[in-house]
Amino acid sequence: MASAESLADGRRDFTLAPALGGITAPAGFTTAGVHCGIKASASSLDLAILAADAPASAAALFTTNLAQAAPVVVSRGHLEQSHGIARAVVVNSGCANACTGTQGMEHARRMAEETAAAVGCTSERVLVASTGVIGVALKIDRVVTGIHAAAAAMTRGGGSDAARAIMTTDPFPKEYAVIVQTPRGAFAIGGMAKGSGMIEPNMATMLGFLTTDAQVPPAVLRRALQASARDTFNAITVDGECSTNDALFILASGASDVVIDDTTYPALLEGLVAVSRELALGIVRGGECATKLIAVTVSDAANVDAARQVARTIANSLLVKTAVHGADPNWGRIVAASGRAGVAFDVEKATVHVGGILMFEKGLPHDDAAPLVAEHMKGRDVRIEVSLGSGGGASATIWTCDLSAEYVRINGEYRT
Amino acid sequence: MASAESLADGRRDFTLAPALGGITAPAGFTTAGVHCGIKASASSLDLAILAADAPASAAALFTTNLAQAAPVVVSRGHLEQSHGIARAVVVNSGCANACTGTQGMEHARRMAEETAAAVGCTSERVLVASTGVIGVALKIDRVVTGIHAAAAAMTRGGGSDAARAIMTTDPFPKEYAVIVQTPRGAFAIGGMAKGSGMIEPNMATMLGFLTTDAQVPPAVLRRALQASARDTFNAITVDGECSTNDALFILASGASDVVIDDTTYPALLEGLVAVSRELALGIVRGGECATKLIAVTVSDAANVDAARQVARTIANSLLVKTAVHGADPNWGRIVAASGRAGVAFDVEKATVHVGGILMFEKGLPHDDAAPLVAEHMKGRDVRIEVSLGSGGGASATIWTCDLSAEYVRINGEYRT
Repeated sequence: MASAESLADGRRDFTLAPALGGITAPAGFTTAGVHCGIKASASSLDLAILAADAPASAAALFTTNLAQAAPVVVSRGHLEQSHGIARAVVVNSGCANACTGTQGMEHARRMAEETAAAVGCTSERVLVASTGVIGVALKIDRVVTGIHAAAAAMTRGGGSDAARAIMTTDPFPKEYAVIVQTPRGAFAIGGMAKGSGMIEPNMATMLGFLTTDAQVPPAVLRRALQASARDTFNAITVDGECSTNDALFILASGASDVVIDDTTYPALLEGLVAVSRELALGIVRGGECATKLIAVTVSDAANVDAARQVARTIANSLLVKTAVHGADPNWGRIVAASGRAGVAFDVEKATVHVGGILMFEKGLPHDDAAPLVAEHMKGRDVRIEVSLGSGGGASATIWTCDLSAEYVRINGEYRT
Repeated sequence: MASAESLADGRRDFTLAPALGGITAPAGFTTAGVHCGIKASASSLDLAILAADAPASAAALFTTNLAQAAPVVVSRGHLEQSHGIARAVVVNSGCANACTGTQGMEHARRMAEETAAAVGCTSERVLVASTGVIGVALKIDRVVTGIHAAAAAMTRGGGSDAARAIMTTDPFPKEYAVIVQTPRGAFAIGGMAKGSGMIEPNMATMLGFLTTDAQVPPAVLRRALQASARDTFNAITVDGECSTNDALFILASGASDVVIDDTTYPALLEGLVAVSRELALGIVRGGECATKLIAVTVSDAANVDAARQVARTIANSLLVKTAVHGADPNWGRIVAASGRAGVAFDVEKATVHVGGILMFEKGLPHDDAAPLVAEHMKGRDVRIEVSLGSGGGASATIWTCDLSAEYVRINGEYRT
């Protein structure tokens, strides 16, 4: 699998540069975010539409949770019916439309129908996403009013409003874009995402939206989305919880001159990885009550799956996350989490570095390094590196955040 | 597998009654707990010896963590060399003797040798356990002094001191005993345990010690220990962490008249389950900063492993544990955790009860029950029941505790 690192070896014939505009940086897309009344505060945007000027290639990845929200079921069905073609995505925040039965399915379909009528396409060419409280019915009349308001307001400059309209407990909006320059010309990739935890009462969900104006057939777009998500959106964890509504969408308008084929695929993939990583790390940095971003890299594993499994176990360890919160160079917790991850390795050959400083080797601690490591851990970015010493050479990184007492407090508050 | 429930059908020909004396309730054992100076406070007991009057059948279960402490390695080796015969167990708290290299192995062997000399047996008939800080060398001279002091002080009334001497961050000692009355006569089962989390800096470990005066061959004892641990010590979780030092020991003195064979095995097993469950639930109730005991029962699963996997996922969910802490009847988090557990089931057929009250059925919430459920959740014991509706009929229970902001605080404090 290609990744930003493996391609950064000088052989590539394309360049990436950050761009303004988020989700509408690529040509051929407009968007708007409005307040329609799902969230209580009149100043809170709670509905967004992203539309392509013409039918676009589309792909999506959905939650693997068995309990799937109505918009997930409807969007998956629409992508199948349309064979990977879409004109618009409609998203609301403040209500997940999950565990809402037959009525919830009707509401999700209605969102697609109203959006289709407003942008002028058939309803299976509209994808739907929702995020917010589980088990509460959508105020569908307000949503319909909001859809018409958003459809009337869509512009190429609406990206920031859209990025705000999909937020729930997120402390800040997350949007990013790059321009990819290739020998065949330039194309853009933009994106926005939300996600903070499954939170406050039952607020949920990671949602990601990507756009590009490259010319990409749906099957290639799907392959690139899966490949880029693996080491970005699928390599983060805030609290180890997988929501009922998680979804990641991509639309390709084809409005640029660049055709994606075997030659240009690496450029598309690297661009997707760059945008996705920025958004995914934004989700972690904005994780509920998080104060630090933690990169857990496990190297010298027998294979990538083994490396990822150990990294994920460390990243989800309460004791590691609380130790990082307190800037405690507690290598013993990292060793213990590695040892219970279900991956065979020889502890005597393993090493643990924190902030690049050796803390554990040959079964013994290097405790004299603790003060230096504690200094590193007081920063906003903490690096944990475990080498399993298996001789396999495979590695993987999982990003997570620290766990604060405030996380427990906001998630333990009684629902009113 | 037999369990307390499956045997409680009126066919059994034995009775259980609680007994005083903890670990020394069975005949043929003496014990003592002393302060030898591993813990700073002069009033804190930190070393215990449990000895059988004569060679006893012995069995043990050890941590599955790849990083295994020296006492775990030594005890496993001694049990193999002695073919399941032991005279004594020596335990220290305050230092885990884990990640301590060659010196740590020497210290663990020295503990066995000194204890063997004091009680009059060969050193492979002594088992060793340690709990406390990882990566710190044992103060072996103090330990040796403590071993001789404890060996000189051993009595049949020393159970409470021993139960205190094995504590680390435990808020209270955990000991229990039962008398099992059978047609062949009576025998006793006693036990003590410690465990509170992997804690304060790197305090660790679940340790359990069981005794009986039934006459049990080592192989039968091992089989009974494994069977009884499955639904007791192995069915609890405080923070999802498995320590480097976890161990559960059992010694059978044979001092009663009761021989364990196929006829009396169910009585032994039920007695072990009764004592083990009491101790295991004590560990959860004394979990770090826990305020509530949560029993998560998953029923109507395809098989017991599937039921246990779903129950364990719910029990380790941060969002479920924080919701219970705040007495929030947040069924959506229970459904979401069930759905990501990796076990296939139909959410439409699943039900969720909390405190016996139906909260979720046919894909829809019963939110009118929320106030009643919140009342139940304000108590010290919270019951969560999920039926997967698979028609399989298998069930399993996992016990856990709530997660408080205080847990995060004590685990995030910088080591001094």
